[in-house]
Amino acid sequence: MSITTKIAIAGLGTVGVGVVKILQAKTAELGAKLGANISLVGVCARSSKDRGVDLSNVPFFTDPCEMIRASRPDVFVELIGGSEGAALDAVSLALQSGVHVVTANKALLAIHGAELARMAEESDVGLRFEAAVAGGIPVIKALQEGLVGNQIIRVAGILNGTCNYILSAMDKTGDDFQVMLNKAQELGYAEADPTFDVDGIDAAHKIAILASCAFGTIPRFDHVDIEGIRDVTSDDISFARELGYRLKLLGVARRNPEGLEQRVHLAMVPDHEPLANVDGVFNAVMLDAEPVGRVMIDGRGAGEGPTASAVVADIADIIRGMNGPSFGRPVQELEDVGAAPASARMGAYYIRLSVKDEPGVLAGITSELADKSVSLDIVLQKKRDPGANVPLILVTHDTSEGDLRAALDAIAKQSVVAETPVVIRIFQS
Amino acid sequence: MSITTKIAIAGLGTVGVGVVKILQAKTAELGAKLGANISLVGVCARSSKDRGVDLSNVPFFTDPCEMIRASRPDVFVELIGGSEGAALDAVSLALQSGVHVVTANKALLAIHGAELARMAEESDVGLRFEAAVAGGIPVIKALQEGLVGNQIIRVAGILNGTCNYILSAMDKTGDDFQVMLNKAQELGYAEADPTFDVDGIDAAHKIAILASCAFGTIPRFDHVDIEGIRDVTSDDISFARELGYRLKLLGVARRNPEGLEQRVHLAMVPDHEPLANVDGVFNAVMLDAEPVGRVMIDGRGAGEGPTASAVVADIADIIRGMNGPSFGRPVQELEDVGAAPASARMGAYYIRLSVKDEPGVLAGITSELADKSVSLDIVLQKKRDPGANVPLILVTHDTSEGDLRAALDAIAKQSVVAETPVVIRIFQS
Repeated sequence: MSITTKIAIAGLGTVGVGVVKILQAKTAELGAKLGANISLVGVCARSSKDRGVDLSNVPFFTDPCEMIRASRPDVFVELIGGSEGAALDAVSLALQSGVHVVTANKALLAIHGAELARMAEESDVGLRFEAAVAGGIPVIKALQEGLVGNQIIRVAGILNGTCNYILSAMDKTGDDFQVMLNKAQELGYAEADPTFDVDGIDAAHKIAILASCAFGTIPRFDHVDIEGIRDVTSDDISFARELGYRLKLLGVARRNPEGLEQRVHLAMVPDHEPLANVDGVFNAVMLDAEPVGRVMIDGRGAGEGPTASAVVADIADIIRGMNGPSFGRPVQELEDVGAAPASARMGAYYIRLSVKDEPGVLAGITSELADKSVSLDIVLQKKRDPGANVPLILVTHDTSEGDLRAALDAIAKQSVVAETPVVIRIFQS
Repeated sequence: MSITTKIAIAGLGTVGVGVVKILQAKTAELGAKLGANISLVGVCARSSKDRGVDLSNVPFFTDPCEMIRASRPDVFVELIGGSEGAALDAVSLALQSGVHVVTANKALLAIHGAELARMAEESDVGLRFEAAVAGGIPVIKALQEGLVGNQIIRVAGILNGTCNYILSAMDKTGDDFQVMLNKAQELGYAEADPTFDVDGIDAAHKIAILASCAFGTIPRFDHVDIEGIRDVTSDDISFARELGYRLKLLGVARRNPEGLEQRVHLAMVPDHEPLANVDGVFNAVMLDAEPVGRVMIDGRGAGEGPTASAVVADIADIIRGMNGPSFGRPVQELEDVGAAPASARMGAYYIRLSVKDEPGVLAGITSELADKSVSLDIVLQKKRDPGANVPLILVTHDTSEGDLRAALDAIAKQSVVAETPVVIRIFQS
């Protein structure tokens, strides 16, 4: 690394512009902190329109690979996005050319993390991605460095600000999912096509990366159990409140004797838990670890400032010489652990049934549960208009998910059960 | 740094033993993560009694300086404590001898931080102290690395687990300070001599270190305004609840046009603020920064596991080559900013007066406040037994602390005012 560090940035959306702003505004301060000057030697985007930052002295490219070849940066910052195509090509080229890479691309890392980390090792350069998970929250650094002496027991987080905004807003207003999704789109918190966010895919990319850093495993996005929030109803939100829970989309990872558990799903979080009180577009990650105990970090998980802050931190670390293994240990020492079967999960569950208002309904349902040794902690039957279907809320004691699903399959077939049962996992501390 | 890193530890209390346990249990894992073996080449304590860890193959010393000279470690871990004497001598010797230092000693850093950092720079070795602030929470790392591209606006934290335990327990039980201090002592959460904790000195050491890392200033413990929790009453705790606050001992640092504001004091924290809900022995640090926004980290602030976790993280960072400036930038670039005068602080205040139950009391008090342009947000007068003094609670709008104190000096002289007014700052987001 020369005394001047040359940076090239591909992708000039809000995050890219945010990075340029920080580098331009903090030139002297970063110089003092890092003992190195930072020079922007190339930017790359589809068009060279005005973005509110002065890039007149910076060579402009439309092809990121061409930029890498022509500008010969020390650090290539990839903010293109997407797990394939231009991002994958450019990151691969940079790493193979001995150029450090900083990326905010969670999909790329979750899917191609191991092969890219191997390229970085072979070229002895850094591949860093703090910005890919939970925006401005330095959680990758906490896992890989701050808690390096710990055994991580569980990672659980609110990893998608769009979903958390929608769920918080539904909780506050009582409105339905679709209303709040529209509102989030108006406010710019959700994309026109919200699939990646509301279907849990974005959070799944992030939990796959966190799991790898936490448990020393190869990132395996394809092993994440994913459920989104499209089916959440205002009924479930208000029953959650009534039972002392808040409804959140969580990413959870844990290493079990059966394998690696990675899941993204709605969860009932007890309202005294810190995660229950993380609202709006905030993200939070809770780490249970030995011997440190519980550490939680929360902050803004997306947007120009938070994500750019994380990108700049990674650039700074590379300048300081922190270009060790991307996922905390060399790729050859990362384990490829199989996915723990969901059926083996032990836990408590919230179940909402819509049943006909007839005698014997409760007996028929509870006997199916008893057959599978599922015992109940709470039963809540709500009054509705005469003749209408009645919501029946059950909260189980700890049970295996396999047993519960088997009982519910049988229950769903009963003629008194009007809709597919809703099952939501209860978050346990 | 050789492929084997030699560690010598001075101080074998709970933290020292915790560090030994991690190093012994995680030898292989740390080797994989760091690409280096760690070898314990010396331990130092007053006596060589059995501490539940096998140190039979490790040379034992009673003098830390002798250990440094004889065992020639790469990293010296100082867990002796105290700002002067053996700790200062040994850390100075290590740094001047080209030995990296990891310490959990907040007093040493808060008072001698700049001179020790200069020694480290002159010898080109690291002086790291994650464990000195908020135990297992990687907040120094977050400030110096994770948020390196940010301007820190304010640092506010619950930095002393003993005080937070006592305040949380008073809130829960309604018992008095002394009862809960005794309980904390029984549980091992408070020392036999609790002065450093309950008088705010420990938190003041920590805020001085945090302020230096956050604002690029020389650590100036002597500039911290310090108030402890000995005078807190169960009345104040319950009035806080009634008004929608939780009473917390906070360390706060902010750089103002008037200078550096560093203070440790009781604060009324609005109960929707995340800091309000950090209970028991937990610590939390909230960082307001640009452009990242608000980041909060919480976890266990003391004890064997959390503190040892932070010490091991610092050792790991040194092995990885992270031995840059101790306070984030070279000592010669740290500013020595004067203390902002407390009287210049603008904010809202809770005031509890004990007044005689006579006509005209409220008029006399409010006219003094009006004279100093202090306006009131809340007035709460509570019924007491006939003839007894009456508690009068006032919450001000934003006012200068100087004006408020002047008004209260005049009020305290009124014959209807039975006790010295209690003033507690209100925490504002």
